Amino acid sequence: MKANQTLLCDFYELTMANGYFELGKGDEIAYFDVFFRTVPDGGGFAIAAGLDQVIDYIKNLSFTEEDVAFLREKKMFSEKFLDYLRRFRFTGDIWAVPEGTPIFPGEPIMTVRAPSIEAQFIETFVLLSLNHQSLIATKANRVVRAADGRPVAEFGSRRAQGADGAILGARAAYIGGCAATACTISDRDYAIPATGTMAHSWVQMFPTEYEAFVAYCKTYPQNATLLVDTYDVLRSGVPNAIKAFREVLVPLGIKNCGIRLDSGDITYLSKKARKMLDEAGFPECKIVVSNSLDENIIRDIIHQGAKIDSFGVGERLITAKSSPIFGGVYKLVAKEENGRIVPKIKISENPEKITNPHFKKVYRIYDRETGKAIADQLCVYDETIDENQPLELFDPVETWKTKTVENYTVRDLLVPIFKDGECVYTSPRIGEIRDYCKDQIDKLWDEVKRFENPHRYYVDLSHKLWDIKHQLLINGGK
Amino acid sequence: MKANQTLLCDFYELTMANGYFELGKGDEIAYFDVFFRTVPDGGGFAIAAGLDQVIDYIKNLSFTEEDVAFLREKKMFSEKFLDYLRRFRFTGDIWAVPEGTPIFPGEPIMTVRAPSIEAQFIETFVLLSLNHQSLIATKANRVVRAADGRPVAEFGSRRAQGADGAILGARAAYIGGCAATACTISDRDYAIPATGTMAHSWVQMFPTEYEAFVAYCKTYPQNATLLVDTYDVLRSGVPNAIKAFREVLVPLGIKNCGIRLDSGDITYLSKKARKMLDEAGFPECKIVVSNSLDENIIRDIIHQGAKIDSFGVGERLITAKSSPIFGGVYKLVAKEENGRIVPKIKISENPEKITNPHFKKVYRIYDRETGKAIADQLCVYDETIDENQPLELFDPVETWKTKTVENYTVRDLLVPIFKDGECVYTSPRIGEIRDYCKDQIDKLWDEVKRFENPHRYYVDLSHKLWDIKHQLLINGGK
Repeated sequence: MKANQTLLCDFYELTMANGYFELGKGDEIAYFDVFFRTVPDGGGFAIAAGLDQVIDYIKNLSFTEEDVAFLREKKMFSEKFLDYLRRFRFTGDIWAVPEGTPIFPGEPIMTVRAPSIEAQFIETFVLLSLNHQSLIATKANRVVRAADGRPVAEFGSRRAQGADGAILGARAAYIGGCAATACTISDRDYAIPATGTMAHSWVQMFPTEYEAFVAYCKTYPQNATLLVDTYDVLRSGVPNAIKAFREVLVPLGIKNCGIRLDSGDITYLSKKARKMLDEAGFPECKIVVSNSLDENIIRDIIHQGAKIDSFGVGERLITAKSSPIFGGVYKLVAKEENGRIVPKIKISENPEKITNPHFKKVYRIYDRETGKAIADQLCVYDETIDENQPLELFDPVETWKTKTVENYTVRDLLVPIFKDGECVYTSPRIGEIRDYCKDQIDKLWDEVKRFENPHRYYVDLSHKLWDIKHQLLINGGK
Repeated sequence: MKANQTLLCDFYELTMANGYFELGKGDEIAYFDVFFRTVPDGGGFAIAAGLDQVIDYIKNLSFTEEDVAFLREKKMFSEKFLDYLRRFRFTGDIWAVPEGTPIFPGEPIMTVRAPSIEAQFIETFVLLSLNHQSLIATKANRVVRAADGRPVAEFGSRRAQGADGAILGARAAYIGGCAATACTISDRDYAIPATGTMAHSWVQMFPTEYEAFVAYCKTYPQNATLLVDTYDVLRSGVPNAIKAFREVLVPLGIKNCGIRLDSGDITYLSKKARKMLDEAGFPECKIVVSNSLDENIIRDIIHQGAKIDSFGVGERLITAKSSPIFGGVYKLVAKEENGRIVPKIKISENPEKITNPHFKKVYRIYDRETGKAIADQLCVYDETIDENQPLELFDPVETWKTKTVENYTVRDLLVPIFKDGECVYTSPRIGEIRDYCKDQIDKLWDEVKRFENPHRYYVDLSHKLWDIKHQLLINGGK
């Protein structure tokens, strides 16, 4: 059970809310989209994650008397508004792409329709949760793909940016394909399998490395993965591990064991260690490696023939070190005026900051023959795509570039999460999210999955939506 | 009140704990140091932060019945051990450098002396908290120094890596010198002043930008900072702001107002906007800028003559984007054996991973005349420095490089935090920590404070400690 985090909001959500309240604009229905602009690490796609925590946050939204007293002290809010906050809850609608879905720049991954105060208020937490977990799921998936079938465990808690960075980072990493985490509480609270064996301190706590290894094998004969780099990997660690396996595991008939390398030249050491283990009669002993790994190092050491069975990846995964920001934004795209939905746009000196206006649908178009995703098309909320008709796609910037697709299926990516303030979505179990993620990534072309210079996946606008956007731009946003 | 986070630990802390318990080694007294190896961003120093949250964690350590039931399911722990966990609490001693202290690679910033299970168990949370907040305090201080006296507000919650990344990141940023945060809950829970005005959506919610500005000025005449880049800064935003100030603020005699630029060429736009505001009779109107800033961009735009009164810095501060990992580690440095403190070392194939052994003190040596910090010296726990005697410092690697200092004062950096499991430390208020941090940074030479290629501050070993380390290395760690 988390403490109430209602006030985990930017202060301007409250100044704006009080303003709308005072001006009688609080009940005007607003539509906001969450979308992002660039894929971290120059990748071809990202993975949506963090929705479950948004759901929890919104279900539990409420201002305590302590919150109200705190806000009164700021001397910026009217008593009427503070009184309104006492009864505040979310009454709107939310649609979102399911966790684990591959997502692309410029398309809504969540749409919120609610009275303006409510829709505005949830901005900070919505972005924080989706940005953080999508970032880590996306990074973890890169690492997992680099490991090429070898299991990857997430080991980064101690270098995470705060407790939730560790706890929910482990959750996101699992969605992205990691096999396990070192973070115990993520297992208790989110069913992410936690694993772990020993630190260097275990070895140092015994008179000799050999005694430390024997003691560990005796305590955990079924899970004996020994850390072999406290003193000297090849001259001390591996020979002592072999001796300990012989002394404790062989008499028990246990072949399942392992060593972990945490420093030095991993490629060289793993090859040498593999040879020593094989020659000593432990071909089934697994070699686990850790030590500041990421997708590039993993790909490189595998390419160089390192003998590795699984990876522990810590700080560079849990912080997404090479690209540690997921730039999801929350923008007003429409308003209801006299019962009509009026599209809104934000223009900017930076062209990439111009928004796609209006209440929208996102259709993913799959080739019926291969099952592969061809493109996504953003449509106005009242448009549908008839799968029996050819569909013309065109580039929203270079509009003369067109492509007509036939023999396709479409899927509406945004599914209902809240309806009139009630949660109408049943979150899949974490393992199902992970499987769904893998399945959906399998539906992307390899060209989109390249680490460097991936093919750009098309996110196009329907003719109707393009016309509306174009008209708003011509009119300077009005 | 936070939920119980006792299980926010790497799983190996528990496998080792159960092992020590089963082997009767749980009560052996162990000494662990926290230290870090490199300063983020190639800087000359870091800032310690996160101690207060470590204190909270340790005070609240306890395993619930739910925790015990969860651990039993893992089928790795004995019932005796699980029963022991029900009564588990921290009974040891902790020393640490106060929050806000400038710290340097290789020196202990915390030392834990406790029965091995307890000392080992707290590793993950201790590192997570100190690493995260020291990272952000260090980054924030770079940004604040670049702003050269102009206030910096932390605006990054929506891009933080999880809720605590936002909440405690704001706390750490304040310690590092930020003036405020956008994160409301950090104000409620940690007394970090929260501020904020409007998003682009405020402007979009009104028929025109001018009406949006007038409405805001009427609602908050004393705090009217208007976001001027929703449509066009110089052709629409600034002229409309001037009109709104004239309409609402001038009749009220209010001169305190502001505009915020959030996109485009900040240098160019701020100069033009300044000129327009001055010519319109608003020389006191402040110009606030945001938009993916960091210390390098801030230094650059100030150098180019941008007219800026204060900065809002978001994602690149709250994630420490350019260097998002603080690599603090937790290493066994000594054990008590028959009442004697026996130094321990960890050797590694990577020389920078070799530890400084033994239970130690850290003395900071200040020049009596200038007040500036000259060097830190690590000593064995039972050594003292006599300020009346000349002190010879020598480089621990290039040992022939020596320097004798006279007319100095010393300060023992590690202060008692826990004694026999009881907290004996009264944390200063957050403002005091911030002031202390600024004061201590003023005591560093400018050469150490350079952003690029700073002078290396000396962290030396006493003769006694150097001899002990050298002997352990010669003996291969035994």
